[in-house]
Formats: sequence, C-alpha cells, structure tokens
Amino acid sequence: MDYEKFYYIAEIVGTVAFASSGTLVAIRKGMDIFGIVVLAIITAVGGGIIRDITLGITPPMAFRDTTYTSVSIVTALILIVFLSKKIKILSLKGVDREFMIKYTQIASVLDAIGLGIFTASAVTVGIARGYMNNPFLLIFVGVITGCGGGVMRDLLSDTIPIIFTKNTIYAVASLLGAVVFIVLRPFGANFAFLMGASATVVIRLLSMKYRWSLPDVSSDLVDGDDA
Amino acid sequence: MDYEKFYYIAEIVGTVAFASSGTLVAIRKGMDIFGIVVLAIITAVGGGIIRDITLGITPPMAFRDTTYTSVSIVTALILIVFLSKKIKILSLKGVDREFMIKYTQIASVLDAIGLGIFTASAVTVGIARGYMNNPFLLIFVGVITGCGGGVMRDLLSDTIPIIFTKNTIYAVASLLGAVVFIVLRPFGANFAFLMGASATVVIRLLSMKYRWSLPDVSSDLVDGDDA
Amino acid sequence: MDYEKFYYIAEIVGTVAFASSGTLVAIRKGMDIFGIVVLAIITAVGGGIIRDITLGITPPMAFRDTTYTSVSIVTALILIVFLSKKIKILSLKGVDREFMIKYTQIASVLDAIGLGIFTASAVTVGIARGYMNNPFLLIFVGVITGCGGGVMRDLLSDTIPIIFTKNTIYAVASLLGAVVFIVLRPFGANFAFLMGASATVVIRLLSMKYRWSLPDVSSDLVDGDDA
Repeated sequence: MDYEKFYYIAEIVGTVAFASSGTLVAIRKGMDIFGIVVLAIITAVGGGIIRDITLGITPPMAFRDTTYTSVSIVTALILIVFLSKKIKILSLKGVDREFMIKYTQIASVLDAIGLGIFTASAVTVGIARGYMNNPFLLIFVGVITGCGGGVMRDLLSDTIPIIFTKNTIYAVASLLGAVVFIVLRPFGANFAFLMGASATVVIRLLSMKYRWSLPDVSSDLVDGDDA
Repeated sequence: MDYEKFYYIAEIVGTVAFASSGTLVAIRKGMDIFGIVVLAIITAVGGGIIRDITLGITPPMAFRDTTYTSVSIVTALILIVFLSKKIKILSLKGVDREFMIKYTQIASVLDAIGLGIFTASAVTVGIARGYMNNPFLLIFVGVITGCGGGVMRDLLSDTIPIIFTKNTIYAVASLLGAVVFIVLRPFGANFAFLMGASATVVIRLLSMKYRWSLPDVSSDLVDGDDA
Repeated sequence: MDYEKFYYIAEIVGTVAFASSGTLVAIRKGMDIFGIVVLAIITAVGGGIIRDITLGITPPMAFRDTTYTSVSIVTALILIVFLSKKIKILSLKGVDREFMIKYTQIASVLDAIGLGIFTASAVTVGIARGYMNNPFLLIFVGVITGCGGGVMRDLLSDTIPIIFTKNTIYAVASLLGAVVFIVLRPFGANFAFLMGASATVVIRLLSMKYRWSLPDVSSDLVDGDDA
C-alpha cells in the first residue's frame, strides 16, 4: 500500500472538513465573501501554521504548498453556491432539513477524520524535527495542530473557542491519538500514524454517538466573585 | 530620485494612518491611555510582526527599530490631546462635524497609502529572503502585512475583523497590488514597488469613491442551522 | 545565597498566581474542565511563549520544560475542587466572603510577584540572546512576557484585555521594572534581576494600596464618530 498517497488523501479530506466548518461559522456570523473564504482557509491551515511556528519551521508549510489553501477556497466557494437561496438547490423545506441532518453527520465524520490526521501528521513532523525524546512536546504539538484551526476560527468570529465550553471529547480525542502514536512509534512510523489517527477518529465518533462528555464542573462551581 | 528616502517617508505616512485608526477604535471602545497607545502601536506594526514571524525574521523589525513604535505613540498622544473635550480645540459643533468629515477623508487616503506601502514593502522583504520563485507566499505575506495590523486591532477590541464583514475592496486591493508588484518585478525593484503600491492605493480609493464592493453573498445565504 | 533556586521558586510562585487568575476567569465564563485547564496554562505560560517566538527560540521553553504546565494544571484542579459546591469546603456564606477577600488579596500579591519575576526573567533571556545593546527590545520583551499571558487569557474569553481598559498601573509596573533591571545590569546580573523584579512588585502593590491609576482620558474624549 502506498502510504504517502494515503496520507495525502487523508489530509485533503481533513482540509475539506475543516474548511467547511470555517465556512459555516463565517456565514452564520454574517461575514462577507472575503471573510468566509479567509475563515475557511484559517480553520483548515491555522493549526498547521501554529505547529510550524512552534517548531521553528518558517515560512509555515501552508504558505509554501498551495494545495491546502486552494482546497479550502474551493470548498468555501462550493458551499456558498450550494447554500445560496437564489440558486435554490435546496429549495424544498423538507429536503433542506433532511439534507442538513445528513450534512451535519457527514461533516462530523469528516471533521473527526481531519482531527485524527492532522494530529498524527503533526506528531510525525515533530519527530522529523528531532523531538522523539520529548513526548510532552509531541503531544502538545499534536493537539495544537488538531485543534488550533478551530480555535483561530472562533477567535476571529468573536466567540469563546467551543472546545473550551461544550464538555465535548474533542481535544481529548486528539490528545489520546497523539499518545497512541508515540507509544506505538517503535513498531513503525506508518503503523503508529495509522493507529494514532484511528484512535482519535474512533474516540471522537464514539463520544458523539454515546454522548460521552467531560465531567461537567461548571454548573457545580462557585464563582469567585459571587461567593 | 532617492528611492530609499521615498520608501521611508511613505512608511511613516502609513504608520501614522494605521496608528490613528488604532487610536480611534481604542477610544471608541473606552480603553485607558495605555490601551489606546498599545492599540495604536499594534495596528501600525502588527502586520509587520506577523510578516517577520512568518518569514523567520526574529526578533521582528518592529522590536529592533524604534521609529515606527515611536511614531505610533506620538500619533496616539497627539490625537488624544486633539480629541480631548477639556482642551476644546474642536469646541464648535459645526466645526466638529466639518472637521470630522475632512478628517475621515484624510484618514482614508492615508490608510490606503499605508496599505499600499506595507503590502509592497512586505513583498520586497519576502523577495530579499529568497522567495522570488514563490509568488503565492509573496502575495500571502503582502496581504497579511497590509491587513494584519487591522485584524489584530479588531481582535483586541473584541470585534469581528471588519475586513471580514463589510464587503469592502480592502484586502483585495492589497492582493492586487502584490500581484502587480510580482508581475512587474522583472522590470526593476523600484519600479515594481512604485507600481504595486500605487495599484493598491488607486484600487482602494476608487472602490471607496465609486462604492465598489465584493458581491454580497451573506444576505443570500441559507444558514446551515436554520435550513 | 543560591540565586538559581531563588529564581526557580519565584517563577513557580508566579506560575501559580497566573494559573489561578486564568482558572477564575475560565470559571466565570462558564468554560468546561478542558477550557479551564487550558486557560490556566495559557495565562501562566502564554507570555513566555510570545517571548520565545519573538526572540526566535523554538520550540518555546514552555513546550520543552513540563514544570510550568504541570504546576498550572495542578493549580487549576485544586482550585476547581476548592470552589466546588458539592464539596462545600466554603459552605458558610460568611466564611466565603471573608475567605474570598483574603483570597483576592493573596492572589493580587502573588500576581504582582509573578509579574515582577516574569518581566525580569524575560529581560535576562533577551540579554542571554545577545540583545544587551537594544534596551528597547529588552523592555518590549519584558512587558510582553509579563502581560502577554493575561492578554491571551482575555482574548480567549472574548473580553477586551483588562490591562487596556482599567487605568491600572500594571503594564507600567512591568515596564518600570524592566527599565530598573537594564539600568542596574552593569552592577551585576543577579543584583539587577532582584532590583528590577522588586521594583515591579513594589510599584504594583503600592499602586493598588494607594489606588494610583493612569490618567483617565477616556471620559474626556470626543468619540470621532459622534463629534
């Protein structure tokens, strides 16, 4: 099996998923076409840019390889056309609802795949830079790369990052995938990549299916000011 | 003609324009004098800092050459004095209104010049770092440098970046200026700089005069949630 | 006296103080346990990360030495348990109030110490990187390191950074401490560190005790739009 090709396709899938999520948030926030496209790009490549700046890789890969940015732009434009009222691809209310439920499900699965791939590929880059003996750094870089684009998306849309507020198993899925990768690394780079990315995807999808969540502490906390 | 001097004066003009815009936003947001001065500095030098970190130039130039920061501080302080009620330079209501219309016009022109200069100077820095053969990177760096300070200004004032929401030809003017620069670069660095910067300024000013705007897609979009 | 050890303990104290402040803000904003812990970490190590990226130190120290992150996590978890309603360590209303006043006072002192230490240690790092002859850069780096974590905390909680709005002598205390450090540097590194950090702490604490503040310009300003 051609691993390089597999990674590549997986990264494109992740890029499409992340760019879609940026596009939808931007539309919801009433951004203009420039804002929508930029938010799609930033959501898709923002994590990788943070990864590269953290590891001292300049200019970040996203500025040198146009693939991911191009895919993000195309994704945003297709979604804009698709969601346009004038074009009425989704004209019937009933069809809309059904479509959106389907769409949301597909988007969640794509997003989980993106999270797994981006986390694992960041750990790969970290190891390539010589940090095999610093698992703490590798995990950090994995999680930041997986989640950073979404955090930048939320910052730029004037929202508290949703991974900080929803009790979801999201960053934790990324973190566990990075751990699996590092633990299995001695058994081979490709094997570790595949298992690590899969761990993230599986944990993320199971957590959505069975509504696993982080322990909800916020409702149980005394606010320092009011107490 | 002494190009170095010309560039230098142009950059100072751009710095004054950008620092003014930061000052006005900070005042509107009720910031204290420290916040106002910092926002003026960040708006003026923020784009350049992003440019330098992207290109691996550390510490960023803004931290090594005090000129731009000093100019930003002085700009903010002069504006604060000028807009102070106590001093009443602008005491008569009629004069105020006339003055503010004039001021807004002047500020827009200065800002357009700043946008053109900063975009072109970023492309120059990118080429100096050896990225002549990567036009994609050069354009990216040009636009980020031109627009980055304003985005940081808006982020720090808890606002969705206005270049994402107003349908204005702003980042696009920066982008087109960068393209003009790169296309004309074979005919000489100074010529390309002048034409690239001018292209941005002219496109920006014409777009304001004739109210050109990006296609307004937002009013035409079905929000994914409601559909 | 063992300076290394002294610095180290001081940095841990600062980390605890900054992590506490991040934890309290995150709780107030209704974040989940992941968000609370991340905000604690970012508030504590965010300034240092900005310092390292500015100075070209990659990966930033916070990613290589786990101490500060670990201390931040433990601080957040202890505070969560402590402030939990179920556990009711703070069950009596009267006790709560008294405790919170006490707590706020202690937290302010710890925070001032953190500000002083982080500012002075950033100047030390800057000098170690060879920038002794660039006091402007050193001061910049000192203030950014001292205040950057708090700014990132506020950005991620969808708030205008409080050091921009409250008229407090905070960044100014950091700045003056950096100046004291640089001026006294010829008399010895440890002496300068101690005096610089102390200057920040003393100025910060005195400003709180005697309610010193920056000149309040905002109430006195004509907003450009309304004028």
